[in-house]
Amino acid sequence: MALRINPDIDPKTHPYISTGLKKSKFGIAADRALEEFKLAFSLGHIEVVGVHKHIGSQLTDVTPFVEALKKVLTLVEALKHDGINVQYINIGGGLGITYSDETPPLPKDLADAIAPLVRDLKVTLIMEPGRVIVGNAGILVTQALYLKEGESKRFVIVDAAMNDLIRPSLYGAYHEIRPLTEAGAQRPKHQVDVVGPVCESGDFLAKDRAMAEVKPGELLAVMSAGAYGFVMSSNYNSRPRVPEALIKDGEIHVIRSRETYDDLVKGEAIPAFLR
Amino acid sequence: MALRINPDIDPKTHPYISTGLKKSKFGIAADRALEEFKLAFSLGHIEVVGVHKHIGSQLTDVTPFVEALKKVLTLVEALKHDGINVQYINIGGGLGITYSDETPPLPKDLADAIAPLVRDLKVTLIMEPGRVIVGNAGILVTQALYLKEGESKRFVIVDAAMNDLIRPSLYGAYHEIRPLTEAGAQRPKHQVDVVGPVCESGDFLAKDRAMAEVKPGELLAVMSAGAYGFVMSSNYNSRPRVPEALIKDGEIHVIRSRETYDDLVKGEAIPAFLR
Repeated sequence: MALRINPDIDPKTHPYISTGLKKSKFGIAADRALEEFKLAFSLGHIEVVGVHKHIGSQLTDVTPFVEALKKVLTLVEALKHDGINVQYINIGGGLGITYSDETPPLPKDLADAIAPLVRDLKVTLIMEPGRVIVGNAGILVTQALYLKEGESKRFVIVDAAMNDLIRPSLYGAYHEIRPLTEAGAQRPKHQVDVVGPVCESGDFLAKDRAMAEVKPGELLAVMSAGAYGFVMSSNYNSRPRVPEALIKDGEIHVIRSRETYDDLVKGEAIPAFLR
Repeated sequence: MALRINPDIDPKTHPYISTGLKKSKFGIAADRALEEFKLAFSLGHIEVVGVHKHIGSQLTDVTPFVEALKKVLTLVEALKHDGINVQYINIGGGLGITYSDETPPLPKDLADAIAPLVRDLKVTLIMEPGRVIVGNAGILVTQALYLKEGESKRFVIVDAAMNDLIRPSLYGAYHEIRPLTEAGAQRPKHQVDVVGPVCESGDFLAKDRAMAEVKPGELLAVMSAGAYGFVMSSNYNSRPRVPEALIKDGEIHVIRSRETYDDLVKGEAIPAFLR
């Protein structure tokens, strides 16, 4: 097993996805780590092979990665001093992507910052990139249903909703929304809310967004939906979850079929006394 | 069909579940409603039979209900003046429940406030109570896995998570948490975060909660989970959704079975070129 330390480094990201602060539930406090690791190594029935850390997600700067790794290396050095050699260092994930105008480091930038620190160590380096691999590989395609002039707002009502992509509601996250018709992008822009058909005001994909005019029936791409999109989706409002398709060389392969209404009640049973 | 009006009444609840404000996506603005209803009634191919309004959820005061209804009745009166008689008035839902120390009106209080306004109208009154019926009829049972002394916080780690009950994360909602062992309630209290096993800091069921000491293995009841609980649950972190059970006369009837790992990948297909 590997033990995870909590390096108390602020990843400067959304509080819900900051995981390596003192107040986080994750890991062993850095200043207690040496003692805990020594205890773990002394136990005959477990084999401690590595150190793990993960300070947060959607980081847009390498500095917190480097600071956290340095704390890990201080620990590794101290362990070595006590005759304990770890075989693995897991530096976690967290590399950010461009949702809007962020300019996160490239994987190469992270590698360049980290490699000099670990090159001479006799350890296997493990990392857990996720979002940076799949985040911008996926889009959520949705159809505009209606346009609505509210009293103080203009709405584009689409057929995707918070149950399909909860990041805007849950984290106040920004997802770019692009028209799938080429002509669309040339039209005049308006300030709109892009909202779904779910029964609450938390059901939005974009708020106060300057967007080129959309006509009912047209398709829109909600960008950067490859990470924390489908995996966080629910059946709220009795909405079957969307299908997933993989596009390769212009061909569409459905890799997960659309849920049916039967799926929604699968496993349900009415007790005898109610029949 | 019924047309929904937006009465622009502040329900004094969470912004995500306030639905009858000017900035909401729902309904027809009250001051445009007469004109829109007259247009709708003039169309030969639709039959407008009623007026609908819903100003929000988890209301703890009858005043907004009464104010909104009065706006609806002003419209109904104006329509009657133009020879148009609606047959149905749907006043929506929204009656709150006690999660913590709220003292929401009872259904009878709401009826007493509304009945005098509608008693003499020749209409059918429709309402949409939901949370007030099922919210406190359901609990989420979870097991304490570990206790953890963080650097600046004390954590009770349980086996339920944000994917099972997202209200705390999504709305900052309060759910009372009670021990299921009678002895538990007598133990000394500590300030704790009750958190799940999901990989983000947004995964909590309670924050900074004074709770009687819990021992690993013990069961806890997360109260008021009957509304917006299971229906908003997801498979985030590859977690199968929990079973649902109905208790009647002390007997447990499983009314929805626990999801399996097979359920998680149901409908998935690997395209030929990847096989």
